[in-house]
Amino acid sequence: MGKMKRYCYGFCLLISIAINILLSINLYVGENNQQTTHRSLLTWSEKAAAEAEEVAAISCSGHGRAYVDGLVFDGQPVCECYDCYGGRDCSELSPGCAADAESGDPVFLEPFWMQHAADSAVVISGWHRMSYRYPDYTTMSEELENYIRKLHSLVGNAITEGRYLVFGIGSSQLLNAAVYALSSENSSSPSNVLASIPFYPMYKEQTMFFNSESFQFEGDTNSWQSNNWTNNMDVIEFVTSPNNPDGELKKSVLGGKTIYDHAYFWPHFTPITGPSDHDLMIFTLSKLTGHAGTRFGWAIIKDKDVYEKVANYISVADLGISKDTQLRVLKLLKVSVEGDGKPLFEFSYNKMRDRWDRLTAVFSKSTRFSIQQRHPLHCNFFNETRLPSPAYAWVKCEREEEDDCGAVLEAGKIIGRSGSIFSAKDRYTRLSLIKSQDDFELLLQRLTELVALENGSIETM
Amino acid sequence: MGKMKRYCYGFCLLISIAINILLSINLYVGENNQQTTHRSLLTWSEKAAAEAEEVAAISCSGHGRAYVDGLVFDGQPVCECYDCYGGRDCSELSPGCAADAESGDPVFLEPFWMQHAADSAVVISGWHRMSYRYPDYTTMSEELENYIRKLHSLVGNAITEGRYLVFGIGSSQLLNAAVYALSSENSSSPSNVLASIPFYPMYKEQTMFFNSESFQFEGDTNSWQSNNWTNNMDVIEFVTSPNNPDGELKKSVLGGKTIYDHAYFWPHFTPITGPSDHDLMIFTLSKLTGHAGTRFGWAIIKDKDVYEKVANYISVADLGISKDTQLRVLKLLKVSVEGDGKPLFEFSYNKMRDRWDRLTAVFSKSTRFSIQQRHPLHCNFFNETRLPSPAYAWVKCEREEEDDCGAVLEAGKIIGRSGSIFSAKDRYTRLSLIKSQDDFELLLQRLTELVALENGSIETM
Repeated sequence: MGKMKRYCYGFCLLISIAINILLSINLYVGENNQQTTHRSLLTWSEKAAAEAEEVAAISCSGHGRAYVDGLVFDGQPVCECYDCYGGRDCSELSPGCAADAESGDPVFLEPFWMQHAADSAVVISGWHRMSYRYPDYTTMSEELENYIRKLHSLVGNAITEGRYLVFGIGSSQLLNAAVYALSSENSSSPSNVLASIPFYPMYKEQTMFFNSESFQFEGDTNSWQSNNWTNNMDVIEFVTSPNNPDGELKKSVLGGKTIYDHAYFWPHFTPITGPSDHDLMIFTLSKLTGHAGTRFGWAIIKDKDVYEKVANYISVADLGISKDTQLRVLKLLKVSVEGDGKPLFEFSYNKMRDRWDRLTAVFSKSTRFSIQQRHPLHCNFFNETRLPSPAYAWVKCEREEEDDCGAVLEAGKIIGRSGSIFSAKDRYTRLSLIKSQDDFELLLQRLTELVALENGSIETM
Repeated sequence: MGKMKRYCYGFCLLISIAINILLSINLYVGENNQQTTHRSLLTWSEKAAAEAEEVAAISCSGHGRAYVDGLVFDGQPVCECYDCYGGRDCSELSPGCAADAESGDPVFLEPFWMQHAADSAVVISGWHRMSYRYPDYTTMSEELENYIRKLHSLVGNAITEGRYLVFGIGSSQLLNAAVYALSSENSSSPSNVLASIPFYPMYKEQTMFFNSESFQFEGDTNSWQSNNWTNNMDVIEFVTSPNNPDGELKKSVLGGKTIYDHAYFWPHFTPITGPSDHDLMIFTLSKLTGHAGTRFGWAIIKDKDVYEKVANYISVADLGISKDTQLRVLKLLKVSVEGDGKPLFEFSYNKMRDRWDRLTAVFSKSTRFSIQQRHPLHCNFFNETRLPSPAYAWVKCEREEEDDCGAVLEAGKIIGRSGSIFSAKDRYTRLSLIKSQDDFELLLQRLTELVALENGSIETM
């Protein structure tokens, strides 16, 4: 018994020590793991972070998304399904659904931001920048301005050295701010605002809506030039390059005061042949990073007087751009300039090239429909010669009787934006190529079906 | 020896088991603690959260603040010091510094948001709402709209049932949107825009700046009434209630079309005697939660046609309000409605009452300077009769020769906003009471010094 007892004591002690060692290792490793997963002990930001991750983890079958500010059902945010998908988890495809290629929603870049989740997330504290102004008494973040200049310098698409910058609520607000800044102060003869057909409808809409005594919309540059033009007339010309809807690189027609709308002047849409250096250039986050929902744009301006007028417009209209928006844009641009911009622009260019390759393959089988010609150019950013891959296909219905191309496409379950919206003929329709992958796949499917009908000569109208 | 050995085994085993127990408790409690501090294992949001907390922890001596989007020195964001403070940690008070009571920066609420840090923080993912639109095809968050209606219902300051809501870039943008919406469509006789002196200068500035053929600024309602007024004239009247600068509750003078600017119609500034129920009312986040840097306001509109025109203005001007701004505002309003609004409005009211108590004590000793009279009213929200505590003191210089009150105050190292900016006489000056505690303390000190000079009859000019 004594010996047994002694063995037992010895054995139990060994086991007990072994357990001690295991527990100690567990504690040590556990603490170490903790340090890897949680670099720092979070306090006040933890709740918001957990909430954001919880919502982001809700599965919507890849055909929808749940958001922290989404509608709530049973205390939980619900999936918001993409077009043509439905059901609680967005898994149900609606069979006869039309392909909606109408809007310029740049959701094609969403996967890039999901891949860069950690670097692009931003935490905004409840007390973040409550004042109207930054410490330098402006309403513009100096850090953000620095990153915008850095990005242009990396991409090589605009000269910013010695130029003024003004932020706006998207490029939208800056378009009208620029018209005000360039318009004649002598209101007895208002400035004439023009653009070249086909053009982005906002130019006309804004200019007419604000109904100012200082300017008036006069329509197309080319017909104006042949009819009314004299050298001393006061004109403000919108030059959209690459152009919306057709992707063409454009130059001023009238040679007067110009507003260069460079929304699409990024390597994913066009080869960058050199930096733009015009008097007044406008860019937007929407078509750069894909964040259309974040209303943010900027103007690059040479002349101090024009700069002050544009800045004054922004101030009078709404006292500047939200500080939370500026903080988020800063985060997004920090990611955009990583690796000298290569990760972002390679992702975006490859996506657009792939879409164009597949699109041209479909249209090459058609004589009923055509799309715009594309010509290779040398891209300084990628340092090679490439075809442009515009944001939109500018489709023409070639059959003489089919002069309402939008209606022809709609009969084939494809929704585009009709030519007349761009002051062109309805024989043309714009199809958006920058929406989600689901949207693009459905568009391609419907186009393929439509082109397949041609030889069978089944009329779709 | 055998017995000794046995004792040793037994003793060691006991100790070992005790250690086991302790280690196990440690592990268990440790895990529990972990669960308290880290409710969930964070992945992609961790980096941004850690960054935000690190910057928030930078000490700026309570006289400044560091921000994640602030300027960076040696890889670290630096303190941005409040007025009159300097040095690396903002600990150095500049001795002869003037008290700046010029702007309406509502930083007095900053401490409330620091106290509610966990609930008011928001994490925005890189892919948050990239589209132009919400799933209901609008540019307005339905959840946010619900919370705005809920807040008005809690506070009892506006009827929202059966009314339309439109969001704007601050109330600033909505002021002009409202003028457009209410103005005559017959541009041969533009609508006449008026306000009652003293009035917020933005009304005049915007109306003149946009230089529309549809409306023109005609100045003061009272002089207009006695000179030009006939019943069939087309007028749009701004009614600011409580009024900026003097805090008065105002009513329409002309009885035509009105825009009620209710920026200050919250329990911290005025007793809420009942819900406002006018055709077009404008509110702003800035003077409700103190977030002036977040450009966000809303209009409550009765008539569908007017609503559609205001909504169209926002759309044409800049395609709506940033989704990130809307997400942040939603978070702030969720905190605002907690405890039926009591925590927020008790904090804000107590702060304002305290400032008014101390301010009136100073002015009561003066015959040279006076401030506006305040009259008690029953506040439905707090369910008691209270004095208003306006955002601004409207100071009058009583000595006949001191007709430039701003200059008199400036000589006493106090910066206000002169009466003429509000189309009133320069015998009046507006002093802001809603800035930071530092600013208010310095203002009170300078006022006390100035009033102390009166009996010594030392001229300060």
